[in-house]
Amino acid sequence: MRNQFIAQLDELNIKLLKMGAMVQEIIEAATRALTAQDIGLAKQVYIMDDKIDELELEIETECMKLIALQQPMAKDLRVIGSILKIITDLERMGDHAVNIAKVTLEIGDEPFIKPLIDIPRMAKLTQDMVNKSLDAFVKSDIALAMEVAKDDDEVDLIYEKIYTELINKMIDNRQLVKQATNLIFIGRFLERIADHATNIGERVIYMVTGELQQIN
Amino acid sequence: MRNQFIAQLDELNIKLLKMGAMVQEIIEAATRALTAQDIGLAKQVYIMDDKIDELELEIETECMKLIALQQPMAKDLRVIGSILKIITDLERMGDHAVNIAKVTLEIGDEPFIKPLIDIPRMAKLTQDMVNKSLDAFVKSDIALAMEVAKDDDEVDLIYEKIYTELINKMIDNRQLVKQATNLIFIGRFLERIADHATNIGERVIYMVTGELQQIN
Repeated sequence: MRNQFIAQLDELNIKLLKMGAMVQEIIEAATRALTAQDIGLAKQVYIMDDKIDELELEIETECMKLIALQQPMAKDLRVIGSILKIITDLERMGDHAVNIAKVTLEIGDEPFIKPLIDIPRMAKLTQDMVNKSLDAFVKSDIALAMEVAKDDDEVDLIYEKIYTELINKMIDNRQLVKQATNLIFIGRFLERIADHATNIGERVIYMVTGELQQIN
Repeated sequence: MRNQFIAQLDELNIKLLKMGAMVQEIIEAATRALTAQDIGLAKQVYIMDDKIDELELEIETECMKLIALQQPMAKDLRVIGSILKIITDLERMGDHAVNIAKVTLEIGDEPFIKPLIDIPRMAKLTQDMVNKSLDAFVKSDIALAMEVAKDDDEVDLIYEKIYTELINKMIDNRQLVKQATNLIFIGRFLERIADHATNIGERVIYMVTGELQQIN
């Protein structure tokens, strides 16, 4: 029974990591679609998100079945509970990637009001955070989970910088208002993605220690 | 065994409705703090959110225990799975109320650049959506769950209106840029709260039919 449980949990972990990889890909695709003003790729992001939603439901159903059939207790139950929460965070990251794609479609082929440097940097950081937070989960590594919170601080700083810069651009030139607001939104979506990765880090700590604490 | 399960489920439902009531209150408080520029109340919102987070964890733990001990199958498992998802949506609504409070603190006692009419209207609508979506859950009422999606369309329309109005204000007068952006954010947070209520509606439909569909 116990071995069977562990085997099923291993399978769930593999699917979870697959979902994490899909989320990293969708963040990458949404950001690339934006910077390259690639409308086709922006539309592709919607399809990628549907796939993520499907996988979320599949993992969720398997978690529930596993709990019902194997009756895990205490720690094991916390592990499955964590998976259920983590997939919600991953799914929401996919939604934010779609939000980025939506703004990209709105901007269309209108020239950028500034070179996009910080946004791709933020995107890269958030992808790493997703990777790190799931790695922390699989290894039950609290130190690694804490690192995610540190990365989140960095993402927040970049967001603040983007925000201030774009607000000033709008003040200088009213013609930039619309796109500047859109770019602030994109910064905000990435910042939210980073928050969701931080949620995963917090979950890992809860799973290991049984204590829910905000690491950021 | 079955009776015991139903009794425990009833208790969970009561806690879920309590969480829903707390979320309605926090939306109301955050909006009132904004419109009345009440710094004390804005700070109170943070404490209200902590309480919501605690209740979420309590409900979550009880759901997991219930699954493990009672081994519910099929439909019952879907009900508990729904509760687990719904509390996540409710918790996120609380976070957005905190986001509103944060912006309120940033605005401080600076005079509003326009009378706030649409924002309280949106807030009221989202509170009703929370109420309606949980009512739909408790009654397994698909028609009611669908209504939530219709309300969401109305919220989206108001948000679009706020967004356009504020963008135009910024274009007219650069001194309004900062607060206008902040007010757009608040509109966005309320719009996100409405999305989470819509998620709950979708969940209810899934719970009853076994089919996950986007109602909006």
